[in-house]
Amino acid sequence: MTTPQHPSADGLWHNLRLADGGMANALAVQHGQIAWMGELAALPAAFADLPRIDTRGALATPGLVDCHTHLVYGGQRANEFAMRLAGASYEEVAKAGGGIVSSVKATRAASEDDLYAQTAPRLQQLLDDGVCAIEIKSGYGLSLEHERKQLRVARRLGADYGVTVRTTFLGAHALPPEYADRSQDYIDLVCHEMLPALHAEGLVDAVDVFCERIAFSLAETEQVFKAAQSLGLPVKLHAEQLSDMGGSALAARYGALSCDHIEHLSQAGIDAMRAAGTVAVLLPGAYYTLRDTHLPPIAALRAAGVPMAVSTDHNPGTSPALSLLLMANMACTLFRLTVPEALAGITSHAARALGLQDTHGTLAVGRPANFVLWDLREPAELVYWLGQQPGRTIVRQGFVALDRLGLL
Amino acid sequence: MTTPQHPSADGLWHNLRLADGGMANALAVQHGQIAWMGELAALPAAFADLPRIDTRGALATPGLVDCHTHLVYGGQRANEFAMRLAGASYEEVAKAGGGIVSSVKATRAASEDDLYAQTAPRLQQLLDDGVCAIEIKSGYGLSLEHERKQLRVARRLGADYGVTVRTTFLGAHALPPEYADRSQDYIDLVCHEMLPALHAEGLVDAVDVFCERIAFSLAETEQVFKAAQSLGLPVKLHAEQLSDMGGSALAARYGALSCDHIEHLSQAGIDAMRAAGTVAVLLPGAYYTLRDTHLPPIAALRAAGVPMAVSTDHNPGTSPALSLLLMANMACTLFRLTVPEALAGITSHAARALGLQDTHGTLAVGRPANFVLWDLREPAELVYWLGQQPGRTIVRQGFVALDRLGLL
Ligand SMILES: [Zn+2]
Ligand SMILES: [Zn+2]
Repeated sequence: MTTPQHPSADGLWHNLRLADGGMANALAVQHGQIAWMGELAALPAAFADLPRIDTRGALATPGLVDCHTHLVYGGQRANEFAMRLAGASYEEVAKAGGGIVSSVKATRAASEDDLYAQTAPRLQQLLDDGVCAIEIKSGYGLSLEHERKQLRVARRLGADYGVTVRTTFLGAHALPPEYADRSQDYIDLVCHEMLPALHAEGLVDAVDVFCERIAFSLAETEQVFKAAQSLGLPVKLHAEQLSDMGGSALAARYGALSCDHIEHLSQAGIDAMRAAGTVAVLLPGAYYTLRDTHLPPIAALRAAGVPMAVSTDHNPGTSPALSLLLMANMACTLFRLTVPEALAGITSHAARALGLQDTHGTLAVGRPANFVLWDLREPAELVYWLGQQPGRTIVRQGFVALDRLGLL
Repeated sequence: MTTPQHPSADGLWHNLRLADGGMANALAVQHGQIAWMGELAALPAAFADLPRIDTRGALATPGLVDCHTHLVYGGQRANEFAMRLAGASYEEVAKAGGGIVSSVKATRAASEDDLYAQTAPRLQQLLDDGVCAIEIKSGYGLSLEHERKQLRVARRLGADYGVTVRTTFLGAHALPPEYADRSQDYIDLVCHEMLPALHAEGLVDAVDVFCERIAFSLAETEQVFKAAQSLGLPVKLHAEQLSDMGGSALAARYGALSCDHIEHLSQAGIDAMRAAGTVAVLLPGAYYTLRDTHLPPIAALRAAGVPMAVSTDHNPGTSPALSLLLMANMACTLFRLTVPEALAGITSHAARALGLQDTHGTLAVGRPANFVLWDLREPAELVYWLGQQPGRTIVRQGFVALDRLGLL
């Protein structure tokens, strides 16, 4: 697999409308960067000679940002999905080799190239939906060798597909079978061997933990955070998904980029997140797939001014989601986000959840050219239609990655 | 707008796997029809010279059937969606011109060509998802002139896009503003003027009514059914969505093709439907969008052996759904259909709900070639992935309408 050859996006993209209502109908791309934005009538002479691309009134958004995924794994769990619907109990599914253990097995069994080949079509679908930056977690390897393999695949995909990939080390995702009943030993391994080694290899942009009764405790979480801190790595947390463990407040104390899931987040957690500037990452695909009924505290987060991001949480068990636009619809329909909140959730706030707020998630001069032109009349249509694949042209990292509008 | 020119699908499609587990790995298309199916090793001599298309192990399903849509309308209601999320009450939305009245206004205001142009991109998205036959209802015109316009657009789209369109006259969808408080007068108009005229013009394949406290009564419904019966037209019904009106039992007495929505269907209704061979059409997109919590009686329908179909109910107010695969996922996730039930729901049972069971919804020799080849490993993946756009090649009415797999 090598980089698909996409044409350069350098040129003057005009006759567009900004989805955020901003006053500009044209945007100049030079050397892959946004060099100018404004009204065409006020085009500076320096850009007058750029080749012009008429977007025919398309709606322009920043490239979307998917800030929480477990995209790299072996196999999939469609069979488990089918078994459960056919009435199988969790025990029966587990006996048949289902559950997270099956993803760990399949991920360990796959070679790096095989894992890459299995993941690439999933990434392609998210990219075709308009995603220009994506977080990818490890956490199905659960050993140095296999976590490394996952993170290497993530890095390779980013390079080959011309998309910004932020890798997150999630060694503390689940207890590997060989460490059953030896949780502390495993956390020691995560902190003292896996994380330092993977960090030394340049494979880790951030560190995450699954803090939950069925996963790792608050004390274990803090141990991992300390290890991350000592290496200068930012942290984030799978927090308060099934119960209020107090993980968000802990994460905030460590200046976490984000707390994710947070269905059971308390007011104390919200206050701590606000004080720390931590982003709340909402994952409606998991809420939907699990038929959860406990809503995250949207009104309180809104009142506190905590930035809310929305992500796919793509994973083979609880959120096999391949469209970030669909997640935005679910965030509105299920969680009652407003349309502007949902759009910020998959752009600017999602970028902030990855520490990418200076380069991604908003359109501004000097940034790499990441934007999508949509054949839609109103910004609200980005979240209103259900399961849509609207006409669109995607500019990613300065290249025209998809041109369904036929603008070139 | 004219028919897109698609290449003929005539040839021997081999190296495929049937999603229903059937024993065939090849399928011959001649003159746009399925001429043979079976194991390549047993290929009859008559088909030996056909050009061969290697599907590379793709999963084959019949073309999907979307058996309940309100696809033809003017405008859209994204703004209303946004207003509601921002906290506007139903009254405020109505004051701002929202609700079904806004769709009636926009539909009436549009010329036939304009209505066609507005609808075509929505149809294209459903077709790209694998739909090969689709029902389209009127019901936003609510006068002879404008209902005619809607149905003419539906017919033209079917011809131009090379897709089987079944038109349903739904004049009794809502009371038009000019008939406020004159429900009986309007139903008389529907029965004595609109339906006979539209039928005479060949625009009506079936007749539907919205039977609900907020729409038309049981007696009004029966009046429309009688008018349909006298013209030899099959009926179907929007039934028991918000309350148990007894509409399904009435519809069954008139041999209805289907009863649709049916969240509040009673056991008596189920029994009547079973006896009449009426299909239960499930519409999870509306259930989801309305955040309904009253589940249709799936277990009882299953126990009674009533065939269950699944459809988008595409409409601008309560289900702006553009993916039938997503509806299948919702039918499983929200309604707990099994995977085989969901797949039958968007193929064979959906065809039956349109009276198309002899030509659509299953793969068999002598039928028009309508099938989809999916780059998926297991049939369950068709419903497991959320918001997917998997690699696929679509053969519709004997032509290769989409070839993302690059098989040609
Ligand atoms: Zn996650
Ligand atoms: Zn309907």
